[in-house]
Amino acid sequence: MTFRAPVRDIAFALAAVGGSDLARRGFPDLDEDTIQAILTAAGAFCEEQLAPLNRIGDTHGARYENGKVTVAPGFAEAYRAFAAGGWNSLSADPEHGGQGLPKALEAGVFEMVQSANMAFGLCPMLTQSAIEALAHVGTERQKQLYLPRLVSGEWTGTMNLTEPQAGTDLAALTTRAEPDGAGGYRLNGQKIFITWGDHDAADNIVHLVLARLPDAPPGVKGISLFLTPKRLVNEDGSLGGLNDLRPASIEHKLGIHGSPTCVMLFEGAKAELVGKPDEGLANMFLMMNAARLQVGVQGVAIGERAWQQAMAFSLERRQGRSAWTGETSARIFDHPDVRLMLALTKAKIEAARGICLMTAVLADEARLAETEAERAAAKARQELLTPIAKAWSTDIGVEAASIGVQVHGGMGFIEETGAAQHYRDARIAPIYEGTNGVQALDLVGRKAPMADGAVVRGLASDILTTAEALTAAEGLAPVGKRLAEGVLALERATDWLLEHRGPEGLAGATAYLRLAGAVIGGWVLGRQALLAQGGTDPWLAGKARLARIYADRVLTLAAGEAAAAMAGDADLAALEPEALAG
Amino acid sequence: MTFRAPVRDIAFALAAVGGSDLARRGFPDLDEDTIQAILTAAGAFCEEQLAPLNRIGDTHGARYENGKVTVAPGFAEAYRAFAAGGWNSLSADPEHGGQGLPKALEAGVFEMVQSANMAFGLCPMLTQSAIEALAHVGTERQKQLYLPRLVSGEWTGTMNLTEPQAGTDLAALTTRAEPDGAGGYRLNGQKIFITWGDHDAADNIVHLVLARLPDAPPGVKGISLFLTPKRLVNEDGSLGGLNDLRPASIEHKLGIHGSPTCVMLFEGAKAELVGKPDEGLANMFLMMNAARLQVGVQGVAIGERAWQQAMAFSLERRQGRSAWTGETSARIFDHPDVRLMLALTKAKIEAARGICLMTAVLADEARLAETEAERAAAKARQELLTPIAKAWSTDIGVEAASIGVQVHGGMGFIEETGAAQHYRDARIAPIYEGTNGVQALDLVGRKAPMADGAVVRGLASDILTTAEALTAAEGLAPVGKRLAEGVLALERATDWLLEHRGPEGLAGATAYLRLAGAVIGGWVLGRQALLAQGGTDPWLAGKARLARIYADRVLTLAAGEAAAAMAGDADLAALEPEALAG
Repeated sequence: MTFRAPVRDIAFALAAVGGSDLARRGFPDLDEDTIQAILTAAGAFCEEQLAPLNRIGDTHGARYENGKVTVAPGFAEAYRAFAAGGWNSLSADPEHGGQGLPKALEAGVFEMVQSANMAFGLCPMLTQSAIEALAHVGTERQKQLYLPRLVSGEWTGTMNLTEPQAGTDLAALTTRAEPDGAGGYRLNGQKIFITWGDHDAADNIVHLVLARLPDAPPGVKGISLFLTPKRLVNEDGSLGGLNDLRPASIEHKLGIHGSPTCVMLFEGAKAELVGKPDEGLANMFLMMNAARLQVGVQGVAIGERAWQQAMAFSLERRQGRSAWTGETSARIFDHPDVRLMLALTKAKIEAARGICLMTAVLADEARLAETEAERAAAKARQELLTPIAKAWSTDIGVEAASIGVQVHGGMGFIEETGAAQHYRDARIAPIYEGTNGVQALDLVGRKAPMADGAVVRGLASDILTTAEALTAAEGLAPVGKRLAEGVLALERATDWLLEHRGPEGLAGATAYLRLAGAVIGGWVLGRQALLAQGGTDPWLAGKARLARIYADRVLTLAAGEAAAAMAGDADLAALEPEALAG
Repeated sequence: MTFRAPVRDIAFALAAVGGSDLARRGFPDLDEDTIQAILTAAGAFCEEQLAPLNRIGDTHGARYENGKVTVAPGFAEAYRAFAAGGWNSLSADPEHGGQGLPKALEAGVFEMVQSANMAFGLCPMLTQSAIEALAHVGTERQKQLYLPRLVSGEWTGTMNLTEPQAGTDLAALTTRAEPDGAGGYRLNGQKIFITWGDHDAADNIVHLVLARLPDAPPGVKGISLFLTPKRLVNEDGSLGGLNDLRPASIEHKLGIHGSPTCVMLFEGAKAELVGKPDEGLANMFLMMNAARLQVGVQGVAIGERAWQQAMAFSLERRQGRSAWTGETSARIFDHPDVRLMLALTKAKIEAARGICLMTAVLADEARLAETEAERAAAKARQELLTPIAKAWSTDIGVEAASIGVQVHGGMGFIEETGAAQHYRDARIAPIYEGTNGVQALDLVGRKAPMADGAVVRGLASDILTTAEALTAAEGLAPVGKRLAEGVLALERATDWLLEHRGPEGLAGATAYLRLAGAVIGGWVLGRQALLAQGGTDPWLAGKARLARIYADRVLTLAAGEAAAAMAGDADLAALEPEALAG
């Protein structure tokens, strides 16, 4: 089924979360029209070049043969067109060939890329992470040598973290880096789950690898970050021979078949250190914020794609009598239960999109806002929102894809329909870049406690201001009331969690994240409804309706979620495996 | 991964919902030990014969070649062993070779079959439906000719309802039945989504088909039920030649690959009428209650299977430091967030199991209880619970399978791990035998309004009695309190829905069903906790813990769900497609 790039939705969502305040964010020379033009052009590229390859990526998949990975038919050509179109370089520094555009705009563009073809979108996403890392901690030489090619998309990047025994727990990793006596290193070890670890769509692949130096302390304090390319790079930038690393196999996965997930073997691969020794984890985390946000964007994207397909089906498929119109053989869209599934899912996707774009706007402000105080405030809120953007959005991606199957009825279970692919593809996003459970622990363990809770409280206070505006606005008072109740629940749970920092609080982490996502999502929809006020076309008028539908069915659960967040761990701590398995 | 038949769980769950009161249910000669022995033997069969075929069913699947369907390797042998073991005939009438055992016991056995191998389990499930229909409305000749072979499992059965244009809306079906002048009929038409519509695991297949007689009125009042076998059956019961019907293809599905889902062509197939002309839909619905309950059981089953696999993984996989024990490289089971996922999922599965078994107990009582009043009361409650058993349990099946993937982290996304198969298999259950949306409409449109709401109120009153007992019991007062709050929320929503019978109420149908499931599920766990009181082994002691964990995290949402159920349709009714797609 055809993908329609939701340019208007994204532009509006960006505006509603402060994205049009370009001067304040450090882009005084950019205007709204340019942003609109870029989103439109990106949308067209995604619709025409990437979306048509989504199904062949699924059915054909990437292949591993004779020690090499070949991408699905059309993917290599599409990747080159993507790079040639400049879509890989939007936010990068002009010094390295980038276009210096806002991260928030890039997030909007990447959403469409991921919607059109999630398996494809992973390739530039990982390249972005490599760019981020090198831009932050690379030497001048590394920047000069690698960044222009990564920014242009001529080369792609990967992140090599996971090993069989070291997933969430990177302390357990064992890949070794040994000095080669000439200022460089040799890497030996095995990495798994390496996204786009090998492929034939670009001339070279720049691997960023976590490994241990010989004298490194144990645990996470002994991990360093290395760069090792598939093909060696001469000092003049030309390509040399193949490095001593190779893909050992690719995984047979539930979804994103078009994305080669490699087992990588490093067999004395020539490598260079990136950043300081033993600071690899911190350097990895520098790019993790960006990567986590991008995965959140994927959640929105796959949700949007699945929703579009279900929506189109609901307008074509006719069954039974509509309780509204009395029409027989009615569009299933005209049955209340089906329309509610579609409307509520759409509202949740818009809420998640707003959270992700808001986080991206903050990332821009954190770099470019005028004053140090503004930058620091933006940075703190960005950090607070990142785990929510990642986890809440990807859970909604899975939910939307599941509802997408459901709306199709029996047809949804048939692979040819395409709804099932979204359900399979969506499932990875809550897992990678830190599982959603890890995001929840990050939120309650590190982010909510920042400045003794002042960052959350500042956010809550801003939401309350919007709630008051809603309460005073025509037709939006019920949203304002529910949103204010949600904020109170969030504050109650925050206070409790700040006082219960041990396992008692950790047991409430996921419920707390769900609560925070629901309330911030309600804020997003409230702001959209306020922005749309006075608009006369059905789409603008729909914003208030979506906000009310969401408030009545999601924000109503906030008090219950707060109770769940504060339920503690007494029973859980005592629940041994024998208590569960009879 | 190995499947462990949860015999103790099932026996305990059955006891907690009144299943041990065998005399009252019309089985005075049956004792608890026999029930336990049957569950144990069934569990062993499922573990040894069916579970090992689950993965090959997925990877190899059923095949369609040269106009015939071949089941996956091992399936035919396993099916014959299943029939030979008497597992197909548990609840059938001894007059037709059945064992006359309780439906509730059969539900317990079938849960293990579906856990072990859901694709396999669909075959006997559909045969049960055919038996149910013939036993209810077949002629004596039809019963004599077909029932013994269906009961023994020598032949299998199918239900042929759906056509491309007629899924939920059977009014639109067009398959024709024409009198052949000799008291029989000829069927012409195409049916889709026919589970086990063709295969090579049994000697014959008895198709029950909905079709229209030439003079039939339009719509659902003109549908009749026919029987048409794959191989013709002579009057002495011997097999004749092939009938004029055939599978045209099988579907390429998201899951349950071992179950052949056929497009069936009837090309002048010889058929006989079952029941009266034009009463086909009513006759189909006779078996629908049983079939819907069995699908609910499937939801429990796939949830249990996925949970077991995740639980086992959580005890093997070691990552990070436990917030409880301080141990590094701890079992992931010892991280609060992971243990909560497992414990809450287990609690929900037990809640759903209890609802399904309770419904099956009521089905027994509705047939066999001593007084007419008891039978009528049981029947009414059985009808009320059926859509909840189907929809709530299958939603939990999907949720459990999704969490099962999540607990595995990256490994969960790899097909070889097996968690992904459960996620794919589980997704069909909310769709077939009436989508979960249809179940919700059945609940608010037909079931809750029975006797002006007296059936729901009677149930609510029984739950409240348990809530009071919990409130008075050692350590269970918080459960009693939450359960009582849940009942109040359910009653509030019921009253509102009974007053809003139009689209306003239909828009709340799914939230109402979720609320009802949550509260009745809480009742189940409360009854288990009460039954377990005084027990000293960890498993019995765990029942109170699971009830509290559930109460604090599911029943807490009841008030919010009630608000959602009562939110009305005003915004929804006005939400045109243009409001959603920008």
